[in-house]
Amino acid sequence: MPTAERPTGGGTVPDKPLLRALRGEALRPPPVWFMRQAGRYLPEYREVRARVRDFLELCYTPELAVEVTLQPLRRFPLDAAILFSDILVVPHALGNPVHFVENEGPRLEPVRRAEDLRRLSPDRLLERLQPVFETVRRLREELSGEVALIGFSGMPWTLAAYLVEGCGSREFLLARRMARENPALFSRLIELLAEAVTRYLEAQVEAGAEAVQLFDSWAGVLAPGECARWVLDPARRIVARLRARFPEVPVIAFARGIGALHARYAAEVPLQGVSLETSVPMDWARDSVARPCGVALQGNLDPVALLVGGDGLLAEIEALAAAADGIPWIFNLGHGVLPETPPGHLARAVRHLQSLFGCAN
Amino acid sequence: MPTAERPTGGGTVPDKPLLRALRGEALRPPPVWFMRQAGRYLPEYREVRARVRDFLELCYTPELAVEVTLQPLRRFPLDAAILFSDILVVPHALGNPVHFVENEGPRLEPVRRAEDLRRLSPDRLLERLQPVFETVRRLREELSGEVALIGFSGMPWTLAAYLVEGCGSREFLLARRMARENPALFSRLIELLAEAVTRYLEAQVEAGAEAVQLFDSWAGVLAPGECARWVLDPARRIVARLRARFPEVPVIAFARGIGALHARYAAEVPLQGVSLETSVPMDWARDSVARPCGVALQGNLDPVALLVGGDGLLAEIEALAAAADGIPWIFNLGHGVLPETPPGHLARAVRHLQSLFGCAN
Repeated sequence: MPTAERPTGGGTVPDKPLLRALRGEALRPPPVWFMRQAGRYLPEYREVRARVRDFLELCYTPELAVEVTLQPLRRFPLDAAILFSDILVVPHALGNPVHFVENEGPRLEPVRRAEDLRRLSPDRLLERLQPVFETVRRLREELSGEVALIGFSGMPWTLAAYLVEGCGSREFLLARRMARENPALFSRLIELLAEAVTRYLEAQVEAGAEAVQLFDSWAGVLAPGECARWVLDPARRIVARLRARFPEVPVIAFARGIGALHARYAAEVPLQGVSLETSVPMDWARDSVARPCGVALQGNLDPVALLVGGDGLLAEIEALAAAADGIPWIFNLGHGVLPETPPGHLARAVRHLQSLFGCAN
Repeated sequence: MPTAERPTGGGTVPDKPLLRALRGEALRPPPVWFMRQAGRYLPEYREVRARVRDFLELCYTPELAVEVTLQPLRRFPLDAAILFSDILVVPHALGNPVHFVENEGPRLEPVRRAEDLRRLSPDRLLERLQPVFETVRRLREELSGEVALIGFSGMPWTLAAYLVEGCGSREFLLARRMARENPALFSRLIELLAEAVTRYLEAQVEAGAEAVQLFDSWAGVLAPGECARWVLDPARRIVARLRARFPEVPVIAFARGIGALHARYAAEVPLQGVSLETSVPMDWARDSVARPCGVALQGNLDPVALLVGGDGLLAEIEALAAAADGIPWIFNLGHGVLPETPPGHLARAVRHLQSLFGCAN
């Protein structure tokens, strides 16, 4: 195996399965992690969550963020920990009010006119995000052995969509409308976010993140031309800068819902992993994304299959493994773990995946 | 041009552009219609809507349904009228309570257990839907010249999703969960709906519909295996029965959000047209759906581009026309006309499309 210097600190990049898959190895069993593996489905998470008033407080308190990040690792033999945080810390750290309403989702002060944009300033971005970097540093110290640490960020389109809308939305019509009605202003918002996202990810890597995942959760609502402009273009620039500075840190993109455009995304953005949403057929992605673009695929078990469990879960895992035959693959969900999921189902999924490849652990 | 007997009534299938495109002709300019071309964006629609208390009353009053169906035809040179109705008339006519809450969407009595399913009976289905067939008959008499009449139905998965959930939803988790937790019961619901949908569409054709469109609006939330089972399988059976009985009536499928699976849908279901959601790249669909499967494509202008108008709208239309080069194509949106859309934008879109191909009208 090739080794490379770690970006900071001593030692070499260890032979962690997640990083090997992202370097192009078709490991079997594949490395495993679950989006939202730290979350409400775990009673120990709910216990920690109850200690703080506000969800952002949990993200900004390193002691607690480290604790909830590590919780799933104590239960399941996972190959990665993902920093516990939220994509909306970036607009928050840019100075835009963000808060979370229990069972309703995020609320942001809407950004819709030029004067709203003035609220956003990168000046104190990294200073405000120090608790996140402290969490990354502590996690890197805590994590041992084969477990890789993944950092992440929301991507400009998705962050802009929340900023314009002021909350979640099914269609994000206000943001899509602003992008077409006032592309100059919208472009300034995207540029500002792209710069912030790049610096945020660089600082996570400096603090010890060994791979990063880019969440463009609402890419799927866009028309292809708009997706090229507001999703692919910023991704190309952000990833190029990251790779230039940290060539050994792989990048996984989760542009949720872009379907057939995953092939173009992977061809145009210099990334190492493509995380697939639930609806994407793995055999199509193998032939149209992984093989032509030389990237690893990540995904894409239906979170509902994990929630329901039983023989159906095992059959879905077998079907995914068969379709991912021969390519670098990271087992994961097509979206986050649902809050009602019995934790035992994650254990069962990992065990079954390993048993398929003759591993008894 | 080949001609064929009309299913009912006298005369032959006229040379209507929509039907020619669905028989495989790459007409330029392409035939044009807009999903939700009859709707809230038109002041004359809002005037009629205000006359009735309930949205379903509008669907079930032939005089009014005919009037709103024809309204957009008086404004724009469209190639098709689509029956004004709602996909939820099928569960309603099966005996399940359905009502529409203004600005909130539909509410249905939820169907989640075997005993709930007993509420649904096909016995009076066609009797309850008589006003819809009367609307179709009157429309067929009213429509002249080149305008084709499209009938439609919601498809079993989408109808089941509303029935299980009891309302609209972003993810339809309850329905996806029931489909996996109790596939035997869910399958009974899907079978019952597939039978009802088939009879409903047959009766629309008998009343005079010249083409039908199948709306599986929430197909995109499913994992590929679930999509094969609850979307493709029922579609295959419904379309096979329709085509066997009315071989001259083309079928357009709008399985919204299935992305790369459109290729499999078109390969497995004997249909004539594939309606594409906004996010699908037309050049991908041309190469992966239209050419290999020999179907017409319909779509897929971003409704937000139509709403915003201006040069951006014209550029989007040009890009679609370029990408659809050489294939049978029906110009349409990727989703319905948005209520805030200025009606003049539809006129401008049609005019620009025609001007691209040297037609001055």
